[in-house]
Amino acid sequence: MTARDAAPSPRTRLQRHPERGSHERARVRDILDQGLVAHVGLAGPEGPFVLPMAYARVADELVLHGSRGSRLMQELASGAPVCVTVTLVDGLVIARSAFRCSMNYRSVVVFGRARSVDGADEKRRLLDLFVRRLTLGVSPRAASDEELAATAVVALELTESSAKLRSGGPRDLPGDLESNTWAGEVPLRVVQLAPRAEPDVPQTAIPPLLSDGLAG
Amino acid sequence: MTARDAAPSPRTRLQRHPERGSHERARVRDILDQGLVAHVGLAGPEGPFVLPMAYARVADELVLHGSRGSRLMQELASGAPVCVTVTLVDGLVIARSAFRCSMNYRSVVVFGRARSVDGADEKRRLLDLFVRRLTLGVSPRAASDEELAATAVVALELTESSAKLRSGGPRDLPGDLESNTWAGEVPLRVVQLAPRAEPDVPQTAIPPLLSDGLAG
Repeated sequence: MTARDAAPSPRTRLQRHPERGSHERARVRDILDQGLVAHVGLAGPEGPFVLPMAYARVADELVLHGSRGSRLMQELASGAPVCVTVTLVDGLVIARSAFRCSMNYRSVVVFGRARSVDGADEKRRLLDLFVRRLTLGVSPRAASDEELAATAVVALELTESSAKLRSGGPRDLPGDLESNTWAGEVPLRVVQLAPRAEPDVPQTAIPPLLSDGLAG
Repeated sequence: MTARDAAPSPRTRLQRHPERGSHERARVRDILDQGLVAHVGLAGPEGPFVLPMAYARVADELVLHGSRGSRLMQELASGAPVCVTVTLVDGLVIARSAFRCSMNYRSVVVFGRARSVDGADEKRRLLDLFVRRLTLGVSPRAASDEELAATAVVALELTESSAKLRSGGPRDLPGDLESNTWAGEVPLRVVQLAPRAEPDVPQTAIPPLLSDGLAG
């Protein structure tokens, strides 16, 4: 652990499989940078709700955006306690026994309260980084002042974050090793298919999200 | 809407982009059957938390399992209000303007309170279906009575569920159509890579999760 690592709180201390946990900030960043969708959880008066949202990591914050009119964005901007989880699915783990079957994955959980990004300059800067990540080298027209005003942006510090992962093949019991069934790992990856251009756009090579492919 | 469709409650009524919503049970089932990981949200005393879990849909319930000792499973089994969200990422949508960039996706949100599956026969049946889905035709040794006892299983009805999706290319403003930047959709898919067998297992062809590939 270095000084830059997240300071784990009791709720980011792992209860199950602590050997799969990591509080190293570098790993948290790396996982966040490979994901596309975060699952954002809030505790409303009627109970929990979890919604998928695009996100971007910028420095040591996780940035979310949405319509200024959305209840979710209003709730986030108000500083309500939030939990944001990003999961990359890396493969299926098929063991000799049902009990030992598993999945390989990497996940990050961030707890905290988001801050509302209200200054026009910072908002524009964060949205630019957000869009740049998801447009693969294309540079769409930047938001107009009106569009910027219609967009709410919030940022959540990674202070209270943790990473967890499983990798490798099954951990079978010794007594099952003579089994006559297949066992191993079936890796899964997210791949980019051929882009579908709109009519009459310039022919442009769209680079992949990550040069070595994007994890699920 | 047929009688089998979910009866939407106020919280499954979509506030933003209601045209992307659907309460048809068939669509909910279809999305759930293509996903691998659910994000399970609970509202604890310290605030919301969201954890990734494998799941299976069995009839009109979503089945989750875990160690009997896990806090999360104990919370779920106690019937605490829960929100379970499954998201498939289908592609990036690159528009002529940053404001119109988007993602194509399909998602399901289920609200409710899970029931604890305690009867050994039902538990075994649900776990068998769970494992069958994720082992691609391999039949690992079934759980022993001891393993079964160590496993907690809960089931959540799809009664209060909704599906939401976006598909297709960007919806640009007329004034942006003359833009000289690329615009279109970059489809994303989850693919299975070559299986990595454990040493000394029989050579077996592992079928893909879904014949036409698995959505992200």
